[in-house]
Amino acid sequence: MSKLMKKNLKQIKTYKPGKPIEEVKRELGLKNVIKLASNESPFPPSKKVRKAIQKKLSELNRYPDGGSFYLKDAIAEKYKIKPENIIIGNGSDEIIIFAIRTFCQKNDNIIIGEPTFLMYNINAQIENIKVNKVPLSNGVYDLEQIARKINKDTKIIFLANPNAPTSTYINKLSFNKFIKKVPKSCILFMDEAYYEFACAIKDYPDTLPLIKKKGLNLIVTRTFSKVYALAGLRVGYGIANSELISAMEKVRDPFNINSIAQTAAETAIKDKDYVKKVLKEVEKGKDHLYMELDKLEYEYFPSATNFILIKTKGDSKSIYEKLLKKGVIVREMSGWGMNGYIRVTIGTDAENKKFIAELKKI
Amino acid sequence: MSKLMKKNLKQIKTYKPGKPIEEVKRELGLKNVIKLASNESPFPPSKKVRKAIQKKLSELNRYPDGGSFYLKDAIAEKYKIKPENIIIGNGSDEIIIFAIRTFCQKNDNIIIGEPTFLMYNINAQIENIKVNKVPLSNGVYDLEQIARKINKDTKIIFLANPNAPTSTYINKLSFNKFIKKVPKSCILFMDEAYYEFACAIKDYPDTLPLIKKKGLNLIVTRTFSKVYALAGLRVGYGIANSELISAMEKVRDPFNINSIAQTAAETAIKDKDYVKKVLKEVEKGKDHLYMELDKLEYEYFPSATNFILIKTKGDSKSIYEKLLKKGVIVREMSGWGMNGYIRVTIGTDAENKKFIAELKKI
Repeated sequence: MSKLMKKNLKQIKTYKPGKPIEEVKRELGLKNVIKLASNESPFPPSKKVRKAIQKKLSELNRYPDGGSFYLKDAIAEKYKIKPENIIIGNGSDEIIIFAIRTFCQKNDNIIIGEPTFLMYNINAQIENIKVNKVPLSNGVYDLEQIARKINKDTKIIFLANPNAPTSTYINKLSFNKFIKKVPKSCILFMDEAYYEFACAIKDYPDTLPLIKKKGLNLIVTRTFSKVYALAGLRVGYGIANSELISAMEKVRDPFNINSIAQTAAETAIKDKDYVKKVLKEVEKGKDHLYMELDKLEYEYFPSATNFILIKTKGDSKSIYEKLLKKGVIVREMSGWGMNGYIRVTIGTDAENKKFIAELKKI
Repeated sequence: MSKLMKKNLKQIKTYKPGKPIEEVKRELGLKNVIKLASNESPFPPSKKVRKAIQKKLSELNRYPDGGSFYLKDAIAEKYKIKPENIIIGNGSDEIIIFAIRTFCQKNDNIIIGEPTFLMYNINAQIENIKVNKVPLSNGVYDLEQIARKINKDTKIIFLANPNAPTSTYINKLSFNKFIKKVPKSCILFMDEAYYEFACAIKDYPDTLPLIKKKGLNLIVTRTFSKVYALAGLRVGYGIANSELISAMEKVRDPFNINSIAQTAAETAIKDKDYVKKVLKEVEKGKDHLYMELDKLEYEYFPSATNFILIKTKGDSKSIYEKLLKKGVIVREMSGWGMNGYIRVTIGTDAENKKFIAELKKI
């Protein structure tokens, strides 16, 4: 470890992604490997997206449009907002980084749930910002406890809704109650990476109308990595009032979003039929997995997402390893402090069946 | 501007990229627009690259390989180094950000030339790090003056070699003399974005063997945005000893490089014939422009890159505007404190001729 690096960086455990298919094939000498580990879509992106990308290939010698003009336009159109309310990130991960780098300084703190998406904590550690963790209560955010934790130095509250890895969501009633307790000195960062899977649920809160609410500093993020099947291209976006957006623009690298990613996302967000079809398939797969897990008497959280958090009947590390050897990659949850749990992404019909078949054998 | 943002961010002037072709067409209602503003390659990427991308399109639902395994392997192979000596950035811009975020803390300072690539200064400002600027002397780095500026709090010295926007380079002799004066407490960051255009020059320094030199902390960056014609995909890389690399890995987002970018870069670096061809074309174009500029009695810096910095015979802003209206986008240099200068990228034969023709008319 280099002596020159900042001290606070030394203790950071970098994020450990789900194992890529290629890597498992390489390491275990397997031919057929399925990945249910990273909450990706099991389907390829829409044909329209692939076609749009092909059209751009001969222009890759040019720098991307630094302002993502057409992509912002398409997002603005979809949500009936203005381009000035949008910032584009290299994945919504990058919006987390933007927010912390723009707003947090020495002695500030952020509040997050526990367990939750790991990148809030990692990025705050990188910036040497204090992280207050509030344990979930029965798998859902304890918003009253979070409200009590807010102090004058609290700069950002990160809520993933739905939350990963629990797949649970904050409902409208709790959310509306909570936002009244968020002071003006503080930003509420709603990470809605799984929005498309949850938005049909009746009491799932609709956050976008609130970006203009006076006295509330709200940033909402969404992504093209899940339902749009563009995880490989890294595009996410943040929506907020124009003051918060232009503040975050200060720390954005001018060419953070590559041309292919811009084109693909712009095309994807307009392809409504594709999204409908994927959502339908995911719901079908979810129902199938619920049924099979019920039969096997496994406990799990009801999911507002494209994945299921399952309580195993033993050591989750050993179950993870056994599944891996059979060519089924899932996520083992001890890194989130949830030993005994595995997280399984809803795959194609064949993948779901393969997972259940291998689980039965263990 | 949001009251919540960090104070030091308020005064930052964000980077103003060269105008994109699409934007100029849109704004000025022009059909034929050429861009000689961003030191891009005027040629599309190699056919092999485009083919490799097409193969990946159906897999975009998967997250990229966070470790860029195959790309690092290809770079390591080319330079006979190890993957552990390489970090991949979303453009080499991102390696600048990594270095500053990893190594610089309060009270540290960095040293840069003036004028030079603007992102060193901008990224240091974002992190609230003091920037010491040492003016170039007759268009080249004043390394003696820079050595004199080093103090105990100097954490990084950024040298672009060749330098943008001057297109000049530091020669072997000066470089070898200079590195003896860089203390152990300090990192020497050699930005070699234009390496491929300069490396055939006899006294251009070969930096890679020095990454293992004891007592020297050297980071070398190169990019796929120039000769490889992949500016649109944003891939750059840093080469250093494994301690410096693993330190910077702490601040890298796990999925900073998208799948298409990885595949394209991996394929591009292996396509040696393509690179040779491009370099030949650029040299030819450069000679043509030199000849025409000489005829017109314009002064310019001899270029070790794919662009030429030209002293205009009047107000560079008005010349820039006049060229723009004719559909020729160049870079106007007052943002670098060089009023009266324009920077022109070497284009295709037709583009170079068009530029000269329009320049003559002014």
